[in-house]
Amino acid sequence: MSRVITTEPLTPEAFAPYGDVLDAVGAPDRIINQGKCGRYHDRALVNVTPETGGRVGISIFHAELRDFPYTLDLIECHPEGSQTFVPMSADPFLVIVSDGPDVPPRAFVTDGAQAINFHRGTWHGVLTPLSGNGLFAVIDRIGDTPNLEEHWFDTPWIVTSDAS
Amino acid sequence: MSRVITTEPLTPEAFAPYGDVLDAVGAPDRIINQGKCGRYHDRALVNVTPETGGRVGISIFHAELRDFPYTLDLIECHPEGSQTFVPMSADPFLVIVSDGPDVPPRAFVTDGAQAINFHRGTWHGVLTPLSGNGLFAVIDRIGDTPNLEEHWFDTPWIVTSDAS
Repeated sequence: MSRVITTEPLTPEAFAPYGDVLDAVGAPDRIINQGKCGRYHDRALVNVTPETGGRVGISIFHAELRDFPYTLDLIECHPEGSQTFVPMSADPFLVIVSDGPDVPPRAFVTDGAQAINFHRGTWHGVLTPLSGNGLFAVIDRIGDTPNLEEHWFDTPWIVTSDAS
Repeated sequence: MSRVITTEPLTPEAFAPYGDVLDAVGAPDRIINQGKCGRYHDRALVNVTPETGGRVGISIFHAELRDFPYTLDLIECHPEGSQTFVPMSADPFLVIVSDGPDVPPRAFVTDGAQAINFHRGTWHGVLTPLSGNGLFAVIDRIGDTPNLEEHWFDTPWIVTSDAS
């Protein structure tokens, strides 16, 4: 079995099994501020399991830039909460998701104007910016109980760009 | 009385009476992802009054770019919730805050690598990007009860840049 996967453009439809794409495509839900701002309203399924003590927090991540071919040796998931990544520069980043440890992952590349939200429990790769400042705002669960599962691949996956 | 105010650089200390500055300055609280990512953890006071039916939502705002001198004729506040603005391009934006309708506002300019969180009830101006794509992720209260107060100035304030 080949251990190579190729990136796909990120679209809301393709990403729907894994989470939400947050962008300003199409007509806004509301026009505010005297016509000067469009609000694309409430676009992420935020679920941080308050019944187990979770609350929403906002953190800043500063990640190293990566490039292709990218070696994927780890996926992880957060069983207790969703996790939103908002890029703080207008640059594409790599978003790897999976239905589980035993199936091939999928690799999406954003268009530079998209944030993403992993639904609670979605298997995903670590944060992998490709260019820009590597800064992201992350909206995820703050809580005292464990919220991380990891799976290391015996044989890593190699992610190549569909643009290469 | 002069109705002109001049911008100040945004710093956490200067902004503390109004809210939080979220950035990646200094040492991260945690190093994650095999050393490749710094986490600046839980940097915003998120308060969306769940006792009155509020929950946290994530929206995208797409705002028109503004320039100096900027005419400020309106401030607003959200008595039922905090409101976080994360710029989706690495560009400065203008952040106007006030202790109330009867005192001069203050105008801060971000450094292009800062997000901000208005604490619940902080009087502030509308979203005013200065350059970039005008896209912001906004983390604020979703709820069915009113959450907006506005004050229109009889005489607008004129905001000038300290760089001009």
